[in-house]
Amino acid sequence: MLTYELGKKRGRPLYEQLYIAVKNDICQGKLQAWEKLPSKRDLARHLSISVATVENAYGLLIAEGYISAKAKSGYYVIPHNHIQAQQTLPPSPPPPEKNKNDFLDLRSNSLSDNDFPFSVWSKLMRKTMTEYGKQLLQNTPAQGIAALRQGIAAHLYQFRGMEVNYENIVVGAGAEYLYNLLIQLLGRHHYFGVENPGYPKISQIYHANDVAYADLPLDDSGLSLWHLRRSPVDVIHISPSHHYPTGIVMPFQRRQELLTWAAEQANRYIIEDDYDSEFRFCDNPIPALISSDQHERVIYVNTFSKTISPAMRISYMILPSHLSQTFKQKLAFYSCTVPSFDQYTLAKFIQEGYFEQHINRMKNRYKNKRDKIIAAIEESDLHNKVEILEQNAGLHFLLRLDTKKSDQELIRLAAESGVLISCLSQYVHGNEEKYAHHIVVNYSSLDFEQLRPAVAKLAAIIRA
Amino acid sequence: MLTYELGKKRGRPLYEQLYIAVKNDICQGKLQAWEKLPSKRDLARHLSISVATVENAYGLLIAEGYISAKAKSGYYVIPHNHIQAQQTLPPSPPPPEKNKNDFLDLRSNSLSDNDFPFSVWSKLMRKTMTEYGKQLLQNTPAQGIAALRQGIAAHLYQFRGMEVNYENIVVGAGAEYLYNLLIQLLGRHHYFGVENPGYPKISQIYHANDVAYADLPLDDSGLSLWHLRRSPVDVIHISPSHHYPTGIVMPFQRRQELLTWAAEQANRYIIEDDYDSEFRFCDNPIPALISSDQHERVIYVNTFSKTISPAMRISYMILPSHLSQTFKQKLAFYSCTVPSFDQYTLAKFIQEGYFEQHINRMKNRYKNKRDKIIAAIEESDLHNKVEILEQNAGLHFLLRLDTKKSDQELIRLAAESGVLISCLSQYVHGNEEKYAHHIVVNYSSLDFEQLRPAVAKLAAIIRA
Repeated sequence: MLTYELGKKRGRPLYEQLYIAVKNDICQGKLQAWEKLPSKRDLARHLSISVATVENAYGLLIAEGYISAKAKSGYYVIPHNHIQAQQTLPPSPPPPEKNKNDFLDLRSNSLSDNDFPFSVWSKLMRKTMTEYGKQLLQNTPAQGIAALRQGIAAHLYQFRGMEVNYENIVVGAGAEYLYNLLIQLLGRHHYFGVENPGYPKISQIYHANDVAYADLPLDDSGLSLWHLRRSPVDVIHISPSHHYPTGIVMPFQRRQELLTWAAEQANRYIIEDDYDSEFRFCDNPIPALISSDQHERVIYVNTFSKTISPAMRISYMILPSHLSQTFKQKLAFYSCTVPSFDQYTLAKFIQEGYFEQHINRMKNRYKNKRDKIIAAIEESDLHNKVEILEQNAGLHFLLRLDTKKSDQELIRLAAESGVLISCLSQYVHGNEEKYAHHIVVNYSSLDFEQLRPAVAKLAAIIRA
Repeated sequence: MLTYELGKKRGRPLYEQLYIAVKNDICQGKLQAWEKLPSKRDLARHLSISVATVENAYGLLIAEGYISAKAKSGYYVIPHNHIQAQQTLPPSPPPPEKNKNDFLDLRSNSLSDNDFPFSVWSKLMRKTMTEYGKQLLQNTPAQGIAALRQGIAAHLYQFRGMEVNYENIVVGAGAEYLYNLLIQLLGRHHYFGVENPGYPKISQIYHANDVAYADLPLDDSGLSLWHLRRSPVDVIHISPSHHYPTGIVMPFQRRQELLTWAAEQANRYIIEDDYDSEFRFCDNPIPALISSDQHERVIYVNTFSKTISPAMRISYMILPSHLSQTFKQKLAFYSCTVPSFDQYTLAKFIQEGYFEQHINRMKNRYKNKRDKIIAAIEESDLHNKVEILEQNAGLHFLLRLDTKKSDQELIRLAAESGVLISCLSQYVHGNEEKYAHHIVVNYSSLDFEQLRPAVAKLAAIIRA
C-alpha cells in the first residue's frame, strides 16, 4: 500500500500533499503504468486521513491525466507520455570510421531503387499535361480532385471489396498530415490511444499537437481491450491488418470487440491505419476493419508512399458520412496539400490499371525477398538460435533471438560488423521483458545479394 | 456605466452573476471589441458591491479570454472570435439561372490560364528525372531538399537583398500547412493576433487549431500598435509588404514600432506573410520586415502558389536560428509534405534563371492589366463616382464607391448583371462604417477583353 508522510505542518493542505506524492511516484516510475491504486477508503484508513482528502487528491490526479477512474473497477495509472515521448528510439548511429554505404541496413523500410515505374509515370505525366492543361492551374478542392477519389474508391472495391463513397475521401500530402487534420476534425477534447509498442511517429504527432494521449499495451491479439476499457481514451489509433513492428494481424474477435467498444458512445472513434495491407502474401485477404463498421465509428487511412514511392506524398482517409459533413463545414477552407498535377497523374495510373499491375509485381518481388531471407536464415548457423515470427504479410518480420546479450549490445555489435538493426524494444515505451531480443527485419530495400552476408554476420554475433 | 441587477437571491455568488452579465454583453455585441471597461473601483461603487467582487468577475473574464488587463491603462474587451469566425465572408453565389462561365469574376485571385510556363516546366521535369533518378525515391529531409532551400536563399538575396541561411528554411505544401506547423513549433500557449480586416483563412486556421487569437484593428499604417499594446497577443500575423485586402504598405515607422514591441519580450514573434511581394510595380522595392530584425523575432513566410501556380503547393518559411534549432529537435520527425520530384524541379527552375524571368514577365503582364483596368475605370461613367486606392503593388486594389447602396445590395446587383464582386466589409469581423462601399478588385485572372464590359456593368449599377 502507498505510504506517505503527510502532516499539517508542511504548509500545504493534506490533499495537495497526497496529490504531489502520488504524482511524483508516477513520474519517477515507482507507480507503473496501468497499476491499480488502492481504493479511497483503504488508502484513507492506511494513512489515517479522511476519505474526502483522498477523494480530493484523486480528483486532481484525474483532472491532470495521471490516473483514470473506471466505475466498479477502481483507479489506474495512465502511462505518462509527456515524459516518455522524448525517450523513444534512441539513435544508434553507425560507427564513424565506416562509409554509410558499407552497411547493410535492416532498419529501413524504404523501397528499393528500381521499383518505381518511372517510364509509365512520366508517360502519364505528359499525357496529363496535354489533356488537362489549364485545369492543372486551378485551385484543387479541399478533399482532392474527384477523379482521383473515384479511382481510389474503385481500387478499394476491386482490391479489398470495400464499398466506399468517394465523397467521403479526403486526399492529403502524407498520412502524418492527415492525422494533423483529424485532430482538428475530431476536436482536441478527445483522448487518443496509441499502440505500445507501435510506430513512433504516431505518438510523436499527438505529442507535437499537445493533445491528451495514452499508450495502450498489446496482447497477442493486438490492442488490449482490458486496458482500453480502464483508460480515458475515446479515439484509438490502430493498424489491425498488420501491426508495426510486432506483425500482429488482429483476429476477428478482437476486431468485433473494438467495434463494440466504439459503438457504445457517440464520441468514440477508431483510426484504422492500413499502411501496408496491399502486401499480403497469401490467399485469404483480411477485410479492413471499416468494412465491418455498422456505426460510422471507423476512419480509414492509407497511403501511396508504401505502394508507389515514399517521395510521392499522397495519402487518403475515408471518413464516416457524418464526419465528412463536419469536414465540409469546418475544414474545407484548407487548400488540398497535394498538387493537382500529381493527383491527375495518379488518377490515370489507377484508372489505366498500372497501379494494380504495380502492386502485384511488388508483391511478388517482396514475397521473393522474404522467402530468400527466411531460407538464408534457416540454412545458416542462426537457425537453431532464432525463431521467425511472421504472418504472411507486410514488409518486415521479427526474429526472436536466443541470447543473453542486451538489445543495446546486439545493436552495437551488429553495427560494428556492418549490419544496422533495430530491436522491438526500441518501439516500446517503458520496459517490458517480453519485448527484448527481437530484431525487426525490414527487408524491402535490401538487394538479393545482400541477404546472405547480412544473415551470416548476424549469426556470428549471436554465436560469439 | 454598466448597470446590472445583481442580488443574493439569485442563487449564485455575486461575482459570478457579474461575470455572466458582462460576458453576455460581450457575446451579444452590447460591449464592443476594444471598448474600455469601467475601473474596478468605479464599477463597484456604481453597482454597490465590493471591489473584491468586481475583481473576481474581471479575473474570470480575463482567464477566459473575454477581456484583457493592461497595467496603468485599464480593462479592454477582446474581439470574441469563436463567435465571429463562423460569420466571415457570407457566400454570395451567382443566381442559378446563369452559367458560371458567363460571369466576370473580380473575386478570384487565381492566375490566368496561359501564365504557367508549361513547356519549360516539363522540360525540367524530364531533366530532373534523368539526372536524379533514384534519388527521387528517397525520403525527403523534413525541411526540404538542400538544393531547393539554397535556390530560395539565392533568389531572396538577388531579388530582395535578403541574407538568409538556407539551414533555417523549411519547405512545406502550402502556407496554410506551414501555419499549422508554426502553431506546433511556437507552442499552443501563445496568443495570436490577426489583422482585421484580413485574409480570412488566417483566422480560420487559428480557429481550427483551437488556439487563443484575437482580431487586431488596422489604422492607416497597418496593424494598430495602440490596440496591440492593450491586447494579450504575443504573436502577430501580418502582411506588411502589401496587406490584403486593404492594400496598405506598412511604412517604416510602424515596422520599427512592431519590431520594438516584439523585441521587448522573449516570447513575442511576428509572422511576416509576404505572399505577393514579388509583384511590386515601381522601382523602390520595400525591404522585408525580417531584414530589419535584429532580435530573431520575425518568421518570414512566402509561397510559390502566387508566383508560379496555385496548383503548385510549395511554400517556405524562414525561421530565426533559435527556432530552427527547436524545429530540428521537436518537429524534424515529420516527413516533408512536398514531393521530392517537385522540389528538385523547382530548384532547377530557380537555379537556371527561369523563375526570375517568369516573375518579370508576370509583373509586366499584371502591371499592364492593372493599367488597363484603371484606364477603363477612369474613362467610364464610373470615374466621378469612385476613388481608386492602390499602391503600385500586388494583384488587387480597392475601389471606393460614392453610393448609398449597402454592400450586400451592391453584391447582389452586380451578380444579377453578371459581375461577381467582393467587398472589403466582407473581410472585416464586426461592423465598421469606414470599411463599407469598397470593392476589392482582383484582376489577375481577368482577360483584357473582359475588363471594359466589367467596368461598364459596375458603372450601370452605381448610376442606377
